[in-house]
Amino acid sequence: MRVSSRGDVDPFIVMDVMTRARELEAEGRRIIHMEVGQPGTPAPKGAREALKSALESEALGYSVTLGLPALRARIAALYGEWYDLDLNPDRVVVTTGSSAGFLLSFASLFDAGARVGIGAPGYPSYRQLLKAMDLEPVILQTTPEARYQPRPDDLRGQGLQGLMIASPGNPSGTMLSRTALSDLMGAAADEGISLISDEIYHGLHYEDRAVSALEISDETYVINSFSKYFSMTGWRVGWMVVPEAHVRRVERLAQHMFICAPTASQVAALGALDCHEELQANVAVYARNRQLLLEHLPQAGFTRIAPPDGGFYVYADVRDLTQDSRVFAREILEQAGVAVTPGLDFDATRGAGTLRFSYAGATEDLEEAMQRLKTFMAKRPVVV
Amino acid sequence: MRVSSRGDVDPFIVMDVMTRARELEAEGRRIIHMEVGQPGTPAPKGAREALKSALESEALGYSVTLGLPALRARIAALYGEWYDLDLNPDRVVVTTGSSAGFLLSFASLFDAGARVGIGAPGYPSYRQLLKAMDLEPVILQTTPEARYQPRPDDLRGQGLQGLMIASPGNPSGTMLSRTALSDLMGAAADEGISLISDEIYHGLHYEDRAVSALEISDETYVINSFSKYFSMTGWRVGWMVVPEAHVRRVERLAQHMFICAPTASQVAALGALDCHEELQANVAVYARNRQLLLEHLPQAGFTRIAPPDGGFYVYADVRDLTQDSRVFAREILEQAGVAVTPGLDFDATRGAGTLRFSYAGATEDLEEAMQRLKTFMAKRPVVV
Repeated sequence: MRVSSRGDVDPFIVMDVMTRARELEAEGRRIIHMEVGQPGTPAPKGAREALKSALESEALGYSVTLGLPALRARIAALYGEWYDLDLNPDRVVVTTGSSAGFLLSFASLFDAGARVGIGAPGYPSYRQLLKAMDLEPVILQTTPEARYQPRPDDLRGQGLQGLMIASPGNPSGTMLSRTALSDLMGAAADEGISLISDEIYHGLHYEDRAVSALEISDETYVINSFSKYFSMTGWRVGWMVVPEAHVRRVERLAQHMFICAPTASQVAALGALDCHEELQANVAVYARNRQLLLEHLPQAGFTRIAPPDGGFYVYADVRDLTQDSRVFAREILEQAGVAVTPGLDFDATRGAGTLRFSYAGATEDLEEAMQRLKTFMAKRPVVV
Repeated sequence: MRVSSRGDVDPFIVMDVMTRARELEAEGRRIIHMEVGQPGTPAPKGAREALKSALESEALGYSVTLGLPALRARIAALYGEWYDLDLNPDRVVVTTGSSAGFLLSFASLFDAGARVGIGAPGYPSYRQLLKAMDLEPVILQTTPEARYQPRPDDLRGQGLQGLMIASPGNPSGTMLSRTALSDLMGAAADEGISLISDEIYHGLHYEDRAVSALEISDETYVINSFSKYFSMTGWRVGWMVVPEAHVRRVERLAQHMFICAPTASQVAALGALDCHEELQANVAVYARNRQLLLEHLPQAGFTRIAPPDGGFYVYADVRDLTQDSRVFAREILEQAGVAVTPGLDFDATRGAGTLRFSYAGATEDLEEAMQRLKTFMAKRPVVV
């Protein structure tokens, strides 16, 4: 059978790390996982209880395509709680995780060949999804000085039809300030660029709170998810907020592309929205973990880090330590028993000089990881 | 914001029926639903119990992209039980319902602009998904004589890169015999056409069993789902079987497009695979319902029907009764309180002369529907 060229997408390089970690574990080694992009905690108790009860009493067949009305209303209310916004629930589209939100956004906004800007470093799937949809990812190189976020000047003369932003970003955890976001959205609007804001790390911030693109303008697609703050990665449930005039077209696309988000996951998500206390306790753990890394990574020798504003990652510039982050990550795994992600997944150009450390795990594991990294780095011969 | 042209997909016409049915119900009318494409039964008990237990003991985070290994192995074993095939579990890809299977297949096999054949009448989403992926659906008009399935001759000279088949079909419920399937697959192979076989109604057949494309050749993509036989529509979990050489590319695409199928749904699906008795009891109900319709629809005046081999639909040619199935469906809904689907969703050309009746509901409801239809038709002035 012949295959497509758009289907020739790149694998995640971190998969090599995960496969090797599993082999080492099978040999009896204890590996500390700082490569994973998901909380170690399960869905909050209220989510699990809501589903257990529904399993007794409901058929859990297809929901309507836009999502359970009660869930859409509760998500709209969250915009009041988080951003003091009065959001019309009709604009909320429940999706099968943010992945579905990306696919729906791209299908709704862009025809084949359209150029869509994405920042590097950034979430690797943006690029691969654009390719799979026959769109052209345009890499915007960001800098630590700009907090690893695109700036208005980066958009000029690029012939972009779209721009994908993420604040807090992955892998950097850095955010766009209200002013920076507003300037960027203004520049995009001036150039006729449709802007999609990935806000899946909202709720996980440690100093200033993250600003939603909806606080600046309604003329944008916002994508969010229950995976991170709500600790529900495997449930594949998220949402989009789209302009009122776009709801019907996104609904029609979703009817055919997804039918609906998993009903059981929607029921659990509705339960999760009322688990404030448990979820804030998770955030307190991430805040402690973040402090731990910001203190101990430099002591271990990882001195070039952009302190993350949100999310649960630290992105480290390791050009003073290696010329190949893939080899370096492998060394750290083999010798220190700590799994980390080489930057090449996030930045094909400069990622050979970076590593991502996730602090989504348990504090005591991360404490041990810091000790292991210090021991490893102290013994490591100086290279470069 | 500018929008795409590929995002301008058609709505389901049946949605008008469903909306109006809900209005009538809100006014206190009792409507019998023969428009829905889903079982009235919940997930089998074993599925729900498996999930309840996992909710206590497991985090239910991301699964690996290809699916829980135990589920893949158990699905492979099903091919032994159903078709006497020895299937390598490595070829099984667990998906977020068959919807994800379609998107993955199209992305893996076809580049923008490729021509993909689909039979009419057929499942409306094929056409719309192809459009959303910038592919060109090529409608193959089928006939009652060919059991509403494409024939080898239909493929010649069409410049097709792909062909999508479904046996049993939706809306017709008709199947390709082993010979017909084999001839069609041979013709597709001769023309270099990649064939995708939608087998989501397998397990629901009433005389001969449905034949899998995998019984004829390994060089095909097969798409299946837990929605129909396993009665798990809202769970959004299904699977594909692909050639060994395609597993890695489909995995990479799925990593980015979906990450994984919902883990909770996968756990439930694994439980469902051992609920043979309960599921066979459901099939016995469908078999009774099918007999009921085949006996009473002609008595009511719907005489031109192709007896369905499988699935849970009867597709009726109503050209002797109306020139506009949309208007006719509305009349039936308003006057008889029975919701049915106008054929236009399945066949834009000839669907003005057809209706689809679903018999996935409870037998007693369908008995009442048959009485209501007889009364309605007896009073209806003869048209045309």
